[in-house]
Amino acid sequence: MLAAVQKALDGLKEREVNRVFFVACGGSSSLMYASKYVLDRESEKVDSDLYSSNEFVYRNPRKLNEKSLVILCSHYGKTPETVEAARFAREKGALTVSLTYEADSPLAQVSEYVIVYEDGKEANYVNEAPAVMLELVFGLLAAKERNQKFTDVVTSLEILGPILQQEKAKFLPKAKELAKSYQDEKVIYTMASGANYGIAYWFAICLLMEMQWIHSHAVHAGEYFHGPFEVVDKDVPFIVLLGLDETRPLEERSLEFTQKYSEKVVVLDAKEFDLKGVADSVKGYIAPLVLQAVLRQFAEELAEVRNHPLSTRRYMWKVPY
Amino acid sequence: MLAAVQKALDGLKEREVNRVFFVACGGSSSLMYASKYVLDRESEKVDSDLYSSNEFVYRNPRKLNEKSLVILCSHYGKTPETVEAARFAREKGALTVSLTYEADSPLAQVSEYVIVYEDGKEANYVNEAPAVMLELVFGLLAAKERNQKFTDVVTSLEILGPILQQEKAKFLPKAKELAKSYQDEKVIYTMASGANYGIAYWFAICLLMEMQWIHSHAVHAGEYFHGPFEVVDKDVPFIVLLGLDETRPLEERSLEFTQKYSEKVVVLDAKEFDLKGVADSVKGYIAPLVLQAVLRQFAEELAEVRNHPLSTRRYMWKVPY
Repeated sequence: MLAAVQKALDGLKEREVNRVFFVACGGSSSLMYASKYVLDRESEKVDSDLYSSNEFVYRNPRKLNEKSLVILCSHYGKTPETVEAARFAREKGALTVSLTYEADSPLAQVSEYVIVYEDGKEANYVNEAPAVMLELVFGLLAAKERNQKFTDVVTSLEILGPILQQEKAKFLPKAKELAKSYQDEKVIYTMASGANYGIAYWFAICLLMEMQWIHSHAVHAGEYFHGPFEVVDKDVPFIVLLGLDETRPLEERSLEFTQKYSEKVVVLDAKEFDLKGVADSVKGYIAPLVLQAVLRQFAEELAEVRNHPLSTRRYMWKVPY
Repeated sequence: MLAAVQKALDGLKEREVNRVFFVACGGSSSLMYASKYVLDRESEKVDSDLYSSNEFVYRNPRKLNEKSLVILCSHYGKTPETVEAARFAREKGALTVSLTYEADSPLAQVSEYVIVYEDGKEANYVNEAPAVMLELVFGLLAAKERNQKFTDVVTSLEILGPILQQEKAKFLPKAKELAKSYQDEKVIYTMASGANYGIAYWFAICLLMEMQWIHSHAVHAGEYFHGPFEVVDKDVPFIVLLGLDETRPLEERSLEFTQKYSEKVVVLDAKEFDLKGVADSVKGYIAPLVLQAVLRQFAEELAEVRNHPLSTRRYMWKVPY
C-alpha cells in the first residue's frame, strides 16, 4: 500500500467523519461506484453520495460540512470541475483526499491529502486508482467502525496484478473475435448492477462513446425490465457483466432475457475468473476491477479492427467547451 | 392535498427519521430524482438514497432500519420488485409509504401508509404522483426541521394544473413539427442535470426506448464533457432540458456545445414557461414537473407520425421475464 494512502488514513483517524462524498467526472467517477456499494453494504453509520464534480458544486449539498470526507479523482489532476469541487469542499471545512497521477497538478495543490497513484505498463496494480479507492473506503471503515475486512482487501489487492494478466490473456482471443463481429455496430449497450455498474458506465461513456464514437448507454440490470428491454431485438448488441456481489441475480436475470431475444450478447462472467488468493469476504468488491481490465481489451481490439485508435478525439482537449 | 398524504405526514411526526430511501422502478423511480435533489439541497440531517427496487433489496443497505423512511411507487401497485422491496423494508422496521394508482394492489396491501394518487384526464394535478412526491418530502422537512417551504410547495402545486395545460398548448405545434423532423431517427439522446435529470431519464427509458423502440441514453449534463460529447455530430439528435434549479449552468453549457456541433437539438427551457403563482422559493423543484408534461407531447406526436402507439409493447406484460 502506498505511504500516501496510509497518511490519508492516519489523517482520517483524527477526524469525525459521518459522510463521504465521491466526486469526480467520467472515468474517474466510474471508479467510485464500487466504493459507494461498499459503504452501503458495510457501513453502520457513514453515509455516502456520488456526484459528478460540477453537480456536486452547484447542488451544494446542505450536509457537506467539517464532518464530511470528500474523495476526488482526476488522472491528470487538471479537470477544472474537480479542482473547483476540491476547493469548494475545503471552504466548507470538509476533509479532501484526492487521487491523481500527477503530483504537481492543480488538484494535488488544492487538496489536503494527495495520493499519487501508479498507472501504465510498469505500474504495480495495488497502487493503481481502482485499488487505492478500495483501500481508502475499507481503511475508513476499519478506523471508524472496526470493520474486519481491511486486511483481506489489502492482501487480495496485492496479488491481483498477476491475476489480471492471466485473465486478460485468457480473454484476448475472444476479444479479437468479438471485435471483428462487432466492428460495424452503431449502438452497443452495456449492462450490470451493484458493484459492477460503474464498469458498465465506464465502458459505455469512455470506451464506446468517447473513444470509439459508438452510441451507448449503461443500462442498470434492475431497471432493464421497466423500459429499456423493449429496444432489444436480435440485432441489438449488449455487453452484460456478471459480478460476484449480492446483486448478481439481477445481472443473471437480465442476461437470460437478453440472450433469448438478441443474437448479439457479449458476456463477461466473473465466476469464470480464477481468483485464487483473493479473500472470499471481498470477492464481490474486487470482481469489478477484474471485469474492467478484461473488458478493456474488447475496446482495444475494436479500435484496432476499426482503425480508430482509442486516443482519437474530435472535441476533447481540442476545441473550447 | 389528499387526506392520505396528511395521514402519512402525521405518521412521520411520531417517528424518528434519519434516512429516506426512494425505491421504485423505471418511470416511478424517475419521479423521485427531484425529491432526492430537494433533500440534498434542503435537509440539515436527513440522508437519502435512490435505488431501483431490486437493487435496494439485494444491495441490502446496512443503514436501513427502524429510523428509515422508505418511499415506494408503482402505478398499478403490482411491480413485483417494488412489492418485495416494501415487504423487505418493513421486515427491517422501516416506515413504508407507498404511492400507487390502485387502492387494492399488492403494494398497497404490504405498505404501512398508502397514497392512492389521481391520474388521467380527470385528475387534479395536485393529487398526481409527481406532486404528491414533493408534498411528502417537503412535509417531512417541515415536520423534522421546520423547513419553511412546505406551504409554498402546496400552494404552488394547487395552481399547477392550469399552468401545465397552458404550457402544453403553447408547445403542441412545436411538438408536431419536431415529431415530423425526428420520426426516422434511430438514436435520440436526452440531457439534463440536478432536479431535471429524472425527466431526461424518464423520457429516454420509458418514452423513447420502451414506447418507441428508439435507442436512447439520458446523459448527465455534467458528465457530458467527460466522454459522451465525443459522439456528437451534426446528425446526432439531442433533447436538452433547461430547468430553474441551481444546476442550470451545467445544462446551459452542455446546450451551447451541442448546438454548435449538432443540427438536431431540441431545447425545452423552463424559463419560457409562464409560472405565475408558483412561489419563487420552489420554482427550481417544480420546473421538472412542467418539463415532463410538456415533453411528453413530443413522444405523443412521435407515436402518431411513426404509427407506433405509445401503448405498443413486444415483451412487457406479454412474455415471461
